[in-house]
Amino acid sequence: MVGRVLSIQSHVVFGYVGGKAAVFPLQCLGYDVDVVNTVHFSNHSGYGWLGGTKTTAAELTQIFQSMESNNLLLPERLLTGYIPGAEGLSAVADLVDKLKAKKPNLIYLLDPVLGDSGRLYVAPDVIPIYQRMLPQSTIITPNWFEVETLTDIKLQDLASLRRALKILHEEYRVPNVVISSIPLADWLSAALPPTFSKIPPNSPRLLCIASAATPNSAHPSTVYAQPVELLPGYFSGVGDLFSALLLAHFVHGDASSNGEAVSHAASQALAKTHAMLRLTHEYAETLPEEDRQPTDDEKDAADPQRKVRRMRGRELRLIQGQDIIRGSGLEIEAMQDWTDFWTT
Amino acid sequence: MVGRVLSIQSHVVFGYVGGKAAVFPLQCLGYDVDVVNTVHFSNHSGYGWLGGTKTTAAELTQIFQSMESNNLLLPERLLTGYIPGAEGLSAVADLVDKLKAKKPNLIYLLDPVLGDSGRLYVAPDVIPIYQRMLPQSTIITPNWFEVETLTDIKLQDLASLRRALKILHEEYRVPNVVISSIPLADWLSAALPPTFSKIPPNSPRLLCIASAATPNSAHPSTVYAQPVELLPGYFSGVGDLFSALLLAHFVHGDASSNGEAVSHAASQALAKTHAMLRLTHEYAETLPEEDRQPTDDEKDAADPQRKVRRMRGRELRLIQGQDIIRGSGLEIEAMQDWTDFWTT
Repeated sequence: MVGRVLSIQSHVVFGYVGGKAAVFPLQCLGYDVDVVNTVHFSNHSGYGWLGGTKTTAAELTQIFQSMESNNLLLPERLLTGYIPGAEGLSAVADLVDKLKAKKPNLIYLLDPVLGDSGRLYVAPDVIPIYQRMLPQSTIITPNWFEVETLTDIKLQDLASLRRALKILHEEYRVPNVVISSIPLADWLSAALPPTFSKIPPNSPRLLCIASAATPNSAHPSTVYAQPVELLPGYFSGVGDLFSALLLAHFVHGDASSNGEAVSHAASQALAKTHAMLRLTHEYAETLPEEDRQPTDDEKDAADPQRKVRRMRGRELRLIQGQDIIRGSGLEIEAMQDWTDFWTT
Repeated sequence: MVGRVLSIQSHVVFGYVGGKAAVFPLQCLGYDVDVVNTVHFSNHSGYGWLGGTKTTAAELTQIFQSMESNNLLLPERLLTGYIPGAEGLSAVADLVDKLKAKKPNLIYLLDPVLGDSGRLYVAPDVIPIYQRMLPQSTIITPNWFEVETLTDIKLQDLASLRRALKILHEEYRVPNVVISSIPLADWLSAALPPTFSKIPPNSPRLLCIASAATPNSAHPSTVYAQPVELLPGYFSGVGDLFSALLLAHFVHGDASSNGEAVSHAASQALAKTHAMLRLTHEYAETLPEEDRQPTDDEKDAADPQRKVRRMRGRELRLIQGQDIIRGSGLEIEAMQDWTDFWTT
């Protein structure tokens, strides 16, 4: 894996979210990474205090312009993540148009960072800008909530999931949609074909779905899926790591093999992300009890350091797990073809 | 090598200087790195255009305060580099005092980035602040010009070099001074003891000097040296990479073995930096002729892209050379003890 990636997302001094979760893995895998920071914060927002500033749209534009004047806009791949304001996102959207015009086969992974679990963490006016940007992407990696927000469809059954994917592929012309984790609710579990490995009913699991558009074919896409074990507790930066690995492992083939390209890359990204999460979880378990208290808003409010200690213990073990990124000793389970996704 | 490094220096989107030259090597070698950016620029200042902003002192202070509130100021090692203004540097100096008070055995590598070849590239009022900070450092890595600027001594013979080192060790109480490269002028070459490998008179060479303070002893320090081959052309970020590697390899022993600690670390840093430089040089040689034009201010002025192409071809091959950072297959030449440095 060689080439140049332009990464535009958040920067935190301490810990591993945004660019701090994405850049090092891309570098380990052999990519030169041009790193634009959309914020310069002390840490992720889950901690008690947050210091630093957002990069203004004017500054982003000035950086892009200088790079253009110096002829340094040379990426073969583009990765965009958290961009907090509409003005900044517009500056990035303009850059994307410019890069795509110059290099139509640019591989663009757009992570539409909008929010999670029903809560937006960007200004609402970024949503229509993301919708306008979608047709320029090669792969998008929305979570459950972001699929709902972008398509305005509540995901509650197989029919609504189909409608949402159809909109993303056909209306927004997104070639590849990868939803890294959806809670494996009963309706979703029941819809999975029997060829999928048996999922014990009481084991908490997530499902990763990769959907590759199949234009001029009977169905909107080829869909792949893989159940993923859900580890207890909330870890930050997991989606950012997953997207970076997905982009790193995506090997552009001809159109007919597009589904294989994205399912192969998603398999790699899933296995590595999960191994990193497991390493982090195991490390967190070795910490003194006071550093691994469960989430409890009431106790956190009474003792702000309680939350800080928990957050700190759950930072991704990216450095200690760098061999995982390189793939040493890792077993990669291929995603399964969900053959009858559009027909059952 | 494990532990946490707080790195405070410049950030460029494209290329490898400042933090972009330092953070990835530290991470490859196993360190968690907390990354504070003192500037957010498109590229290094050697290119034609430069976009972006300097981080204000207020923003730096706010970031440090949030980290303190969250109890995230946990580094065992500190690395400071380019900090362009006096206010920002004062904010960093305050942080250093706080960190040292909390953890007296903090290993602090201070790279006093002031300028090169007789030209300052920071505001002159940062000089006295650096002088006040020197006693807090474990290692400093000034270049030739920075030694002169900090000590106010013109380095022109062995006597002036001794005076400068004596001032740094005794007046400013710096335990370890590493000057990564001094042009091997006749007076310096003549002063080297005969045990040093013969240096052919017409081969352009530099000398790396490491000087470890020996308090309560007959002489101010133990001095080590190693000639280094000078590669043609100017490469940016070399000093930043060297300082990061030096810090990564520095293993604190008891006071008596201090000289061994710094000379061992400098040997490693020299070998790896030189191998990276050679890799970069060899790559630059493979570029089309228009991308490897020699420095020529007149031609550069007539065609600004000429300079840009040269700069681009000389960016460190940090990613492609990551095995060098890990030390695989690298022969490390130990620095030699300059036994009679203080007595001849």
